[in-house]
Amino acid sequence: QGILERLDAGEIVIGDGGFVFALEKRGYVKAGPWTPEATVEHPEAVRQLHREFLRAGSNVLQTFTFYASEDKLENRGNYVAEKISCQKVNEAACDIAREVANEGDALVAGGVSQTPSYLSCKDKTEVKAAFRKQLEVFMKKNVDFLIAEYFEHVEEAVWAVEVLKESGKPVAATMCIGPEGDMHGVSPGQCAVQLVKAGASIVGVNCHFDPETSVETVRLMKEGLQAAKLKAHLMCQPLAFHTPDCGKQGFIDLPEFPFGLEPRIATRWDIQKYARKAYDIGVRFIGGCCGFEPYHIRAIAEELAPERGFLPEASEKHGNWGDNLSMHTKPWVRARARKEYWENLKPASGRPYCPCMSKPDGWGVTKGAKELMQQKEATTEQQLKELFQKKK
Amino acid sequence: QGILERLDAGEIVIGDGGFVFALEKRGYVKAGPWTPEATVEHPEAVRQLHREFLRAGSNVLQTFTFYASEDKLENRGNYVAEKISCQKVNEAACDIAREVANEGDALVAGGVSQTPSYLSCKDKTEVKAAFRKQLEVFMKKNVDFLIAEYFEHVEEAVWAVEVLKESGKPVAATMCIGPEGDMHGVSPGQCAVQLVKAGASIVGVNCHFDPETSVETVRLMKEGLQAAKLKAHLMCQPLAFHTPDCGKQGFIDLPEFPFGLEPRIATRWDIQKYARKAYDIGVRFIGGCCGFEPYHIRAIAEELAPERGFLPEASEKHGNWGDNLSMHTKPWVRARARKEYWENLKPASGRPYCPCMSKPDGWGVTKGAKELMQQKEATTEQQLKELFQKKK
Amino acid sequence: QGILERLDAGEIVIGDGGFVFALEKRGYVKAGPWTPEATVEHPEAVRQLHREFLRAGSNVLQTFTFYASEDKLENRGNYVAEKISCQKVNEAACDIAREVANEGDALVAGGVSQTPSYLSCKDKTEVKAAFRKQLEVFMKKNVDFLIAEYFEHVEEAVWAVEVLKESGKPVAATMCIGPEGDMHGVSPGQCAVQLVKAGASIVGVNCHFDPETSVETVRLMKEGLQAAKLKAHLMCQPLAFHTPDCGKQGFIDLPEFPFGLEPRIATRWDIQKYARKAYDIGVRFIGGCCGFEPYHIRAIAEELAPERGFLPEASEKHGNWGDNLSMHTKPWVRARARKEYWENLKPASGRPYCPCMSKPDGWGVTKGAKELMQQKEATTEQQLKELFQKKK
Amino acid sequence: QGILERLDAGEIVIGDGGFVFALEKRGYVKAGPWTPEATVEHPEAVRQLHREFLRAGSNVLQTFTFYASEDKLENRGNYVAEKISCQKVNEAACDIAREVANEGDALVAGGVSQTPSYLSCKDKTEVKAAFRKQLEVFMKKNVDFLIAEYFEHVEEAVWAVEVLKESGKPVAATMCIGPEGDMHGVSPGQCAVQLVKAGASIVGVNCHFDPETSVETVRLMKEGLQAAKLKAHLMCQPLAFHTPDCGKQGFIDLPEFPFGLEPRIATRWDIQKYARKAYDIGVRFIGGCCGFEPYHIRAIAEELAPERGFLPEASEKHGNWGDNLSMHTKPWVRARARKEYWENLKPASGRPYCPCMSKPDGWGVTKGAKELMQQKEATTEQQLKELFQKKK
Repeated sequence: QGILERLDAGEIVIGDGGFVFALEKRGYVKAGPWTPEATVEHPEAVRQLHREFLRAGSNVLQTFTFYASEDKLENRGNYVAEKISCQKVNEAACDIAREVANEGDALVAGGVSQTPSYLSCKDKTEVKAAFRKQLEVFMKKNVDFLIAEYFEHVEEAVWAVEVLKESGKPVAATMCIGPEGDMHGVSPGQCAVQLVKAGASIVGVNCHFDPETSVETVRLMKEGLQAAKLKAHLMCQPLAFHTPDCGKQGFIDLPEFPFGLEPRIATRWDIQKYARKAYDIGVRFIGGCCGFEPYHIRAIAEELAPERGFLPEASEKHGNWGDNLSMHTKPWVRARARKEYWENLKPASGRPYCPCMSKPDGWGVTKGAKELMQQKEATTEQQLKELFQKKK
Repeated sequence: QGILERLDAGEIVIGDGGFVFALEKRGYVKAGPWTPEATVEHPEAVRQLHREFLRAGSNVLQTFTFYASEDKLENRGNYVAEKISCQKVNEAACDIAREVANEGDALVAGGVSQTPSYLSCKDKTEVKAAFRKQLEVFMKKNVDFLIAEYFEHVEEAVWAVEVLKESGKPVAATMCIGPEGDMHGVSPGQCAVQLVKAGASIVGVNCHFDPETSVETVRLMKEGLQAAKLKAHLMCQPLAFHTPDCGKQGFIDLPEFPFGLEPRIATRWDIQKYARKAYDIGVRFIGGCCGFEPYHIRAIAEELAPERGFLPEASEKHGNWGDNLSMHTKPWVRARARKEYWENLKPASGRPYCPCMSKPDGWGVTKGAKELMQQKEATTEQQLKELFQKKK
Repeated sequence: QGILERLDAGEIVIGDGGFVFALEKRGYVKAGPWTPEATVEHPEAVRQLHREFLRAGSNVLQTFTFYASEDKLENRGNYVAEKISCQKVNEAACDIAREVANEGDALVAGGVSQTPSYLSCKDKTEVKAAFRKQLEVFMKKNVDFLIAEYFEHVEEAVWAVEVLKESGKPVAATMCIGPEGDMHGVSPGQCAVQLVKAGASIVGVNCHFDPETSVETVRLMKEGLQAAKLKAHLMCQPLAFHTPDCGKQGFIDLPEFPFGLEPRIATRWDIQKYARKAYDIGVRFIGGCCGFEPYHIRAIAEELAPERGFLPEASEKHGNWGDNLSMHTKPWVRARARKEYWENLKPASGRPYCPCMSKPDGWGVTKGAKELMQQKEATTEQQLKELFQKKK
Repeated sequence: QGILERLDAGEIVIGDGGFVFALEKRGYVKAGPWTPEATVEHPEAVRQLHREFLRAGSNVLQTFTFYASEDKLENRGNYVAEKISCQKVNEAACDIAREVANEGDALVAGGVSQTPSYLSCKDKTEVKAAFRKQLEVFMKKNVDFLIAEYFEHVEEAVWAVEVLKESGKPVAATMCIGPEGDMHGVSPGQCAVQLVKAGASIVGVNCHFDPETSVETVRLMKEGLQAAKLKAHLMCQPLAFHTPDCGKQGFIDLPEFPFGLEPRIATRWDIQKYARKAYDIGVRFIGGCCGFEPYHIRAIAEELAPERGFLPEASEKHGNWGDNLSMHTKPWVRARARKEYWENLKPASGRPYCPCMSKPDGWGVTKGAKELMQQKEATTEQQLKELFQKKK
């Protein structure tokens, strides 16, 4: 059954977690470029991660094609592009996802995300061409549906949806925005309306903000759709990091990004709370993004097991709310084998010399070192765009 | 070259990370029993983790035989023992480790750890028999050397070393203790002396405490050995969790164990500091235990690259101190592409409603719920021992 | 010169701090009733606190008549009312304030605050009668102007202003609300408009929220007045506690109120930042409420000394931004004798087992103990009102 | 009855709190010099603080003569010494203390503390002369007993005790040290032994460390005395700040000293716990030092009321464990009117951007700014001594 049949039937569809962060920690992705050449270089590592998400309960395996548009691979991952073509990366991603999906009951979704082309020139034709290039691979490999994800500007997201709709396959669209809306100030509600009008059957958010914030953003999208009398399925794939201190542009501006985020990692219980909240406001496509490891996805599947009527395969290695601790030799550890314990635990950081929140960096915020200021002068977003254009 | 040739020649040997914690998050190990039946059930997952540690710089792959003694598998993992024999688990562990070791320059180490037999009866013959059973597999599979690890009582650790020495292979021995010493009050220095006298060529600590505390414990071991005019190589494989609030029995007593430890996870930079400190006090076998993921091991290899003269394979996907951020589009993220930034970052937890430290639970500490007290009465350690004995 | 002459001339007028909290710590006020019978029982203690605020820079000494309406003294402080009449308390308060004001350049302001009568019956005549009773004393003692402060409901505040205006003296009015507005949901802007229309020449907020939040609330009041084309002077007298975690009803709902607020106490540098922010948005009557000790008031006077052209008397015992540390024997303490140091210090709490923020209690929030629930049933606000009415 | 009669009879004697910190916040003492010229300049302020401590339960009023030795007044407070003689300051201090003591049941104790003379030259005769000069005033004014307090070096403390013993009056001696002992490395036990041998009838600690640490230090002193078969009464007057992160030299090295200590201030409940702990290990002279306000002293008196059989006067304005909240209008505030609530509260700081602990500054620790280093070179302790000597 396809994604829309499932959602239309009222099923809960569970997404997967964040590949670039998980594979960075495993040694296969470079933070900074964040490009997915591992599909060609180390397919066994990509395959294993897909398999772990599948076991954890994912019903959708997204092809590992994040930032795999040609312009991105050239700009950021040029050390890659010389050796490995964009097309090969995308094709390998599709093959691996399909191979693992066949091991269970999962759909394969081909994904596109925001492009440097948009940032640098905003020419609709050019940007759409970049998406179309990836789409060709997805069609050739016959993915089950398509996701346009990680867009900061709704205009570009709309273009992506328009291209993906050409395929005739169902299209989902998620933006990496918070309650304040997109980078041009378009509200979540308005973003949702534009995406649905462009042809998306499923809309929501992914990345950039923590679960609580992301659920709130999707709630605002839902309100926007209701006000416009539009219908669409809702989707949420947030960070597995606590980021109450984010500014409008999300966790990238936090001083801990990307190499000091550990103290912010969500527990499995945090994720169970998220799954419940998302479900309660009507989200039925529930997954994760950066920071989500297989056990976080399992937590979604376990929280919603009563509604779904079954547990994921990986729950054979996990007790309900820690009940597998009931056999521990120490009585005080046995006393942790209950829901109330984990639900109410306020976990300590073990870091008394660190604060709980950070001030995000950003335009206007960063007044720090002179060097930074000089760098800034040399490379405003405008100049960055020029740099990108020159390269071409 | 064997482990002793390398250490005698002054080489730095890098260990691997913690399998039970990493595979629990990936969905293959059950917290509570913590048994390694995945070697038989899902060898591809164990193989992939070994491979990631190898790529990250590990020179030693430990067979995934933690808690794989027959008595443990029976007591804790009895749901397993019915289906899978102890011998099969141990053999598969050896085969997988060897297969991956052959992909690079790594040794295979067979490992034994503390047994329920010791806790329940303390009969030397019986306990030694349990170790000997595992040793037989290691000899049949011809591992390169042996590690007796995760002992809270030096008496049992000495018995383990004595058995392992029968093989003629080099023996390393690590205890899961802190600066206060073993559970009978034997100091780290005295523990080290007894282990070396029993035949261990390498001594140190693993698990239960954070890197800083563990390095201090090894330092005390070194002092003990020097005072006794004994020589041995030093080894350290701590947690990748910050645990300044631990009591004598380590992180198991912390309220966050084992499902709420996320905010305590060490960053790669914390681990670089640990590697440097360990090196500075003379430790040359440097690895990790629970919480160590492949990128933590890579951090050890990168910190000590100047001394070793080379980087691990996985560093192709990692910049030195974040220098791969220098290509980021945002200038304030580019400003993070330097050592000083990450070295001095005090990462926020994003959890303002949580404390920084916890009071450990434990005998005499836990005065909480009545239920707990009643449970406690029913199952003192003494009664646990009786339970174990009855089962036999 | 009167209060309006000063403000009209563009002068900065500095208020005083919170008497009930300061005198509670000194042993003269009972937390809970918070009544000011100390004016009769221990005038020397009240006099001394006035004097300290005067030395610290206060231009306005508020009579210590908080909660000194007859109905309040009867309800809460009935142990007092039997011995000491409401009139005596109010008269003594005026005499003491005037005596100290004459030691320097300060005005005396008579103050009224919200009444149990309003909460219990809402009869305008009755409530106004309570205010009028206090006003009679203020007129007899000839205070310089009047302040209606600490109102959660703008309706009652308007009644208070109307009564006070009968006197012909200038009237200031402050509400104990945050940016969400009064307890009936009237916005800060609308509150300000109603108060000015009722006759207040000065409007703003006092108590219940921290300086940052309070400045924001006054900013919203200013916006409301501008939109309504009304003119009034602005006033701000916030808590000297950090309360970013407050709900709509302010710090009373925080679990730390009133006996565990210590870790939230503002430093003098926090107050200097507050004074600057308040000044920058146009507030010219700048003081404090609960938690403000004399040195906090001095911090306002020191921050605004450049604008005012003079320092308060108590600055003879205080260096500018810690410069008196430059004579310390330890060089690292001498290194603290500069503005940048104190401005950027993130002071540690010394409490690693405590969180940074709390969840406020409140209707709908508190689901805790059964006893509480039963108590709640017995004493809803409605029943409380009945209780109060019966007593009469 | 004299101090020794009371202690010998098993009475609990309650000390007072810290004058320099309390009067700094009230505007009468300058942080840095910390000199007590307020006894002459503003006797009413000093008198009022004495009175508040008396009301709170103090049985001992210490003359406000801290740092009132002639050399100190010259060195630090030279702006003072020009106007006001050392003798006048000391005499006024005695007169004020006696005047207030006569209002209740309190003793007057004359106090001396460590001198710059000791630090600069270590000449026993000279140092003793400084103490003798103060003692002359105390004898003339006939104080009830003497306290040598705030000594970092036991050698100087012994000299002080020797001088004070010349008077024939009982002598108490407290050092401002922690469990690591004095600045020359003499352990607390050894310090106690030397002080008792020099003639002190009461020994203990004051200032520099938090209550918990200070009780532990006194416990070590007790052990030292027991081992040496010496007898003395024990005394404890710690900070009212939480300082678990202190180094050997106490809170002065903490980055928050002296103007950012607010988040560390102890609650009244913290102090009740301290009073109980101090009592339990046998301390019978229990008071406070810097940070102790009258309500902290009252907390000691209330905690020990069952043992003493009476409450202090100021308890008329304080309920037992918050029971005066039982009349509050809000049920959730009424729910705080019980011991368990306040005993278990983990008060939030309201400061999510601040850490819980700080790294102390100090020799060898401070590697920061170059300027500091240069300053340091110019003013090592050695050079400071020379500076002091030159001045003479």
